[in-house]
Amino acid sequence: MDISKPVLLLTPGPTPIHPRALAAMSWPMRGHMDPEVFAYNDRIVADLHTLYKTGPGAFASLLSGTGSLGMEAGFANLLEPGDRVLIVSNGVFGERMIEMAQRLSAEVIPVCFPPGEPIRLELVREAAHKNHPKMIAMVHGETSTGVMNPVKELAAIAREVEALYSVDAVTTVGMLDFDMAAWGVDYAYTGSQKCLSAPPGLAPVALSARALEVISQRRTPVITWYSDVLGMQNYWEPGENGRKYHHTIPVQLHWATGEAIRAALDESIAARAERVHWLGQAILQTLETIGFTAFVPQAYRLPTVVAVRLPAGLDDAKVRHQLRHDHHISVTGGLGQTAGKIWRLGLMGENARPEHYLELMTALAEILKAPQLPELFKASCVVR
Amino acid sequence: MDISKPVLLLTPGPTPIHPRALAAMSWPMRGHMDPEVFAYNDRIVADLHTLYKTGPGAFASLLSGTGSLGMEAGFANLLEPGDRVLIVSNGVFGERMIEMAQRLSAEVIPVCFPPGEPIRLELVREAAHKNHPKMIAMVHGETSTGVMNPVKELAAIAREVEALYSVDAVTTVGMLDFDMAAWGVDYAYTGSQKCLSAPPGLAPVALSARALEVISQRRTPVITWYSDVLGMQNYWEPGENGRKYHHTIPVQLHWATGEAIRAALDESIAARAERVHWLGQAILQTLETIGFTAFVPQAYRLPTVVAVRLPAGLDDAKVRHQLRHDHHISVTGGLGQTAGKIWRLGLMGENARPEHYLELMTALAEILKAPQLPELFKASCVVR
Repeated sequence: MDISKPVLLLTPGPTPIHPRALAAMSWPMRGHMDPEVFAYNDRIVADLHTLYKTGPGAFASLLSGTGSLGMEAGFANLLEPGDRVLIVSNGVFGERMIEMAQRLSAEVIPVCFPPGEPIRLELVREAAHKNHPKMIAMVHGETSTGVMNPVKELAAIAREVEALYSVDAVTTVGMLDFDMAAWGVDYAYTGSQKCLSAPPGLAPVALSARALEVISQRRTPVITWYSDVLGMQNYWEPGENGRKYHHTIPVQLHWATGEAIRAALDESIAARAERVHWLGQAILQTLETIGFTAFVPQAYRLPTVVAVRLPAGLDDAKVRHQLRHDHHISVTGGLGQTAGKIWRLGLMGENARPEHYLELMTALAEILKAPQLPELFKASCVVR
Repeated sequence: MDISKPVLLLTPGPTPIHPRALAAMSWPMRGHMDPEVFAYNDRIVADLHTLYKTGPGAFASLLSGTGSLGMEAGFANLLEPGDRVLIVSNGVFGERMIEMAQRLSAEVIPVCFPPGEPIRLELVREAAHKNHPKMIAMVHGETSTGVMNPVKELAAIAREVEALYSVDAVTTVGMLDFDMAAWGVDYAYTGSQKCLSAPPGLAPVALSARALEVISQRRTPVITWYSDVLGMQNYWEPGENGRKYHHTIPVQLHWATGEAIRAALDESIAARAERVHWLGQAILQTLETIGFTAFVPQAYRLPTVVAVRLPAGLDDAKVRHQLRHDHHISVTGGLGQTAGKIWRLGLMGENARPEHYLELMTALAEILKAPQLPELFKASCVVR
């Protein structure tokens, strides 16, 4: 075991740590009630409002757990036992939503499509009008297949039936435009290790004023004390008697994530989206010359997770093992039905860098005996 | 805001980071499914079994959240809605247990004593025999008051009524002897930032074979997907098809906590317990000369959180503000009923060092015009 040797993570999360985030991990230790920590948290909150483009009266903060805790916290806070939620699923993370909401005793109306296939809006609309759910939940970018789902179109359906609208922004916010207020999103979450390139362990979340209103009118307490939004608000926002202790926040991860968010905003989301788009195209163009094909049609392709179908005869496990062991590059395969058939290349935060993908092309050139790959890739990049 | 300036944390958690843990925070990034991460996790598991002294068939791992998530996960996994749990409380963390279990729809039998006062075993025994709970839960060391509760005696009561036995080991395991197998503890948890002096954000937990058996026979799925022990086992233990992805673990915190656990075991828990005991006595002896008194009688005093009643006339807020702002030392006051009346001095992991408390005595010498304090403290330390 040589854990000190760097590995290039071209995975759909976690991503390589941003240098500013890495440096922040070594800042001197502070307590969770320290005035400087509160001041730093205030800056994080302001930046999260910018990142998510929240509207008036919204609440944004960091949950002390990964993106999956962010997913769970939304259902736990916005639904009460027996409340009806329509969940739109076309992949592993949509399935996870269904399981979580069911465990929390919600009445789940699943509207499912095969993994890798697009959402059929008319079926969602029909189910929404028939069932009048309290909430509609969807995955913006389905990490498991590289499909981008229609966030605005589903928002319109949620408005039609006056449902809360919850969006999994794990592979999108921080790298692609995300506009909670304009789209009418009531709850959104991501994981620190995805588009922000901070270490894993935190879930940046945002709730609209409407979501907070629904929480304030609950008939029952939130099932989980740990993820209770009211408990978080007591800690994150100064009340009459100041800020109240809830739990010990992971302060190093706050700093790292705070620096990573600031780095993303400094670069601008528009600039980040642009580098994702052209880099994704350059990668696809290059790999298509040796028989890889795009797994997802352009119309609903997620820019931050490029899913490629493997050429006939390519031994998935063997090639990825060679990449990892001989070249110290980590590439992720399919999940579930797509295992062995696709790779999912991450273009989030610090892995969306041409120099990293040049390393991949150089390694593949050797492994697949395709010496032209690096030059082809460089040429694809230069054209931009 | 000058967050780069070190602050000496003499608080009852978080504690100053152990140098080995701090160094591990900068190790190169790895994915959650990386073979080297699995190998490192295996070492953590082995060390956790040693730390908790688990028995045959036990399961130990890290939960991706703070100690409070560890508390919640115990109730969520071991209880089903309507199950009866007897919770012994004499402080804030006992109260938190009651609230968590109630939110999870357990039938809670609270057996409460005033904060700072000892558990009366005969009342617990009576309530246990009358109610036949499925589980008895207790806080080993009550951080909010500095009281140590009778972990072995309550274990005996749990055995008498054949109840599961859950212990909050947040301020004890890693610094004081903890013997799950000998005592008959079925679930125990702590926070990484307490006695281990790793950064906050992880909950090292252990479950007995009996606890796992109870989980395997549940009639309903665990309410929270995120903290589901079966999901964790799929990730931490290789099954027939290897290890299964559950959520993205906070890998930097795994490394830091892994190094911190290893550092604790290298020093030996017996040696750590000894330095806590003599240092606590030296602190008390010194502070008693200027009117501080022990808040908790020796018979049930928690060695890792020394609670001291303030001398008459000492302005709690003012003195702690001076310590923090002029001397960069953080000391924690009381919680709830003891606010303004006591300080709680942490002696966990890296804050249980005489050189740190000499800094406190030097600062107090100046603030309280008691120039003799540092020499008195040094003399108290030398006697050992």
